[in-house]
Amino acid sequence: MKLAFLGLGVMGYPMAGHLAKAGHEVTVFNRTASKAEAWCREYGGARRDAPADAVAGADIVFICVGNDDDVRGVADGPRGALAGLKADAILVDHTTASAGLARELEQQAKAKGLGFLDAPVSGGQAGAVNGRLTVLVGGEEATFRAAEPAMRHYGQAVTLMGPAGSGQLAKMVNQILIAGIVQGLAEGLNFAVRAGLDANQVAGVLSKGAAQSWQLENRAHTMIDGKFDFGFAVDWMRKDLAICLEEARRNGSSLPVAALVDQLYQRVQARGGGRWDTSSLIQLLAEP
Amino acid sequence: MKLAFLGLGVMGYPMAGHLAKAGHEVTVFNRTASKAEAWCREYGGARRDAPADAVAGADIVFICVGNDDDVRGVADGPRGALAGLKADAILVDHTTASAGLARELEQQAKAKGLGFLDAPVSGGQAGAVNGRLTVLVGGEEATFRAAEPAMRHYGQAVTLMGPAGSGQLAKMVNQILIAGIVQGLAEGLNFAVRAGLDANQVAGVLSKGAAQSWQLENRAHTMIDGKFDFGFAVDWMRKDLAICLEEARRNGSSLPVAALVDQLYQRVQARGGGRWDTSSLIQLLAEP
Repeated sequence: MKLAFLGLGVMGYPMAGHLAKAGHEVTVFNRTASKAEAWCREYGGARRDAPADAVAGADIVFICVGNDDDVRGVADGPRGALAGLKADAILVDHTTASAGLARELEQQAKAKGLGFLDAPVSGGQAGAVNGRLTVLVGGEEATFRAAEPAMRHYGQAVTLMGPAGSGQLAKMVNQILIAGIVQGLAEGLNFAVRAGLDANQVAGVLSKGAAQSWQLENRAHTMIDGKFDFGFAVDWMRKDLAICLEEARRNGSSLPVAALVDQLYQRVQARGGGRWDTSSLIQLLAEP
Repeated sequence: MKLAFLGLGVMGYPMAGHLAKAGHEVTVFNRTASKAEAWCREYGGARRDAPADAVAGADIVFICVGNDDDVRGVADGPRGALAGLKADAILVDHTTASAGLARELEQQAKAKGLGFLDAPVSGGQAGAVNGRLTVLVGGEEATFRAAEPAMRHYGQAVTLMGPAGSGQLAKMVNQILIAGIVQGLAEGLNFAVRAGLDANQVAGVLSKGAAQSWQLENRAHTMIDGKFDFGFAVDWMRKDLAICLEEARRNGSSLPVAALVDQLYQRVQARGGGRWDTSSLIQLLAEP
C-alpha cells in the first residue's frame, strides 16, 4: 500500500518506521528536513519538501504533529495534504488535538471525496518505538476498517470510539484520569517521605490494593528519586489539559481537579520543567 | 493460641471468624451485645461484656473499631483491654486511627510489659470476608513476628512498615492516592458521558494504558450506572482524610487535591450519601 507520513517527531518517526518495516511504500514530510533525511536513511523511504507532494498517489496519509495549528499547517493551503490527496484516499490525524478540529477536517475531507479519522495515541515514545500504542479513533466505520490494518503496525489496541472527534474526546478522558492519579500519587509519596516511611516499600505494598494504578507501578520509584528527564512532557500535558478544559466549558463538565492540576503544571513550567515527565508534580511538594 | 477480638463490625466480624475457623480459641467483645451473640452462634467462641474480661488470658488481642475515641473506649479504663491483659501479651489495633494514638498505645503497653502493633487494613468488607486484606503494620520486629501468623488468616499481605504509627501512616498514603484517583475518574467519566462517548467502552480501552487503575477497572461501570449502595463508605473516608490532613499539618506535607476531595465528600454527605461508596463523587458532577 502507498502511504504518506507527515510529522516525524518523537512519536511520528518510529510510527512511520513501523509502516516502512511492514513493507509499505512510505513517503514522508517533516518541517525540519534533516529529520526526514535521517528517517529515509534509516528506513529507505522517500521524502518531499511539501505535504501536497508527499501525499501524491497515497492511499492513506498519517499526520502526527504538535497541535491544532500545526495540523492545519500541513493539511490546509495550496501545498497542504488536502490539496494533494487523490480521491478515495484516507487522512488519519494522530495528533492530540481538539474534537472541533477533527469535525472540521472531516467536513473538508468529505467535500473532496476523502475519508478522515481522528486517531490520537497514548503509550508515549516507548509505545511508539515498541509498536504498542493505544490508538483512539473517531470517524466512520468503513473508513476505520480500511485504515485499521496499517495502524495495527504500531497500535496494540486500535479502537473506533464513535464519529469524528470521538478519538480526541476519549484521549481527553485519558488525560483527565491521569491528572488526578499523578497529583494524588505526588501528594501521597511526598507525605510518605515526610512521615518517615520507606516510600518505595509503601508504593510496593499499596500497589496490591485499591490504590493501585499504572502510575504507581511505573512512576513511584522515579518520583521518589526525583528523576523526571524522560517520558511525557509537562508542556504537552498542559496543551492537552487546555483542550480538555475548553471542551468541558462547551459540554458542561466540571473538572475541579484537572483544572487545579493544570495550574500546578504551570508552576512546574515556571521553574523550567516544561520538558520534564508529568510525574514531576511531586517537585512542587518536595521543597522545605 | 488463645485470642480475643474486640469490635465485630463489618470488618471485625469476619476477621474474628477467620481466626476461629483456623482453630484458635477466640473470645469476643462488642459494644452491641447482640452482634457478639450472633458471632458466637456462627463461630462457636465465647463472649464477654467488658474488654478486660474478654482479653483475660489471651496471647494476642485484636481491636477493630471506628476511630481514635472508640479505640480508647475499649483499651483504657478499669474495664478496658490494657487493664485485663496478662504480661507478654500483644495488643494489635486494626482500626484506621491516628499515628499519634498508635505511639501513645505503644507507650502504655510497654509500661505494662505488653507488645503493641498498629495494623490498619485495606481491602474493604469483601477483603475481610474472603481473607484477602492488606495489613499495614507498625511496631517492633519481634512483636510483628509473633502476631503475623494469626493476621495471615485474613491478610494476603501483612507487612511491617516501620515503628509504631507506621501502619497508620502507610494507610493514610493509601487514602491520599485513592482520593486523587477517584475524583479524576469521576471527572473523566462524567466528561465522557457529556461528550457523547460510550463511557463503558472508554473505561475498557483506557484501562490498557497509563490511565489504568484498580478504581477504573472495578468502579467505572458502577459509577456510570450511578450505583453506590456498597463498598467503602464516604463517612469512613472523611474520617480517614481528616486524619491525613491533621498528620500533614504536623509533618509539613501539602495535600491540595486530598483537601479538595475531602470537601467534595462533605457535599456527598450533605445530600445524604454518607453511607454511599467513595466512588459516589461522580454524583456531584452528574447534575444538569
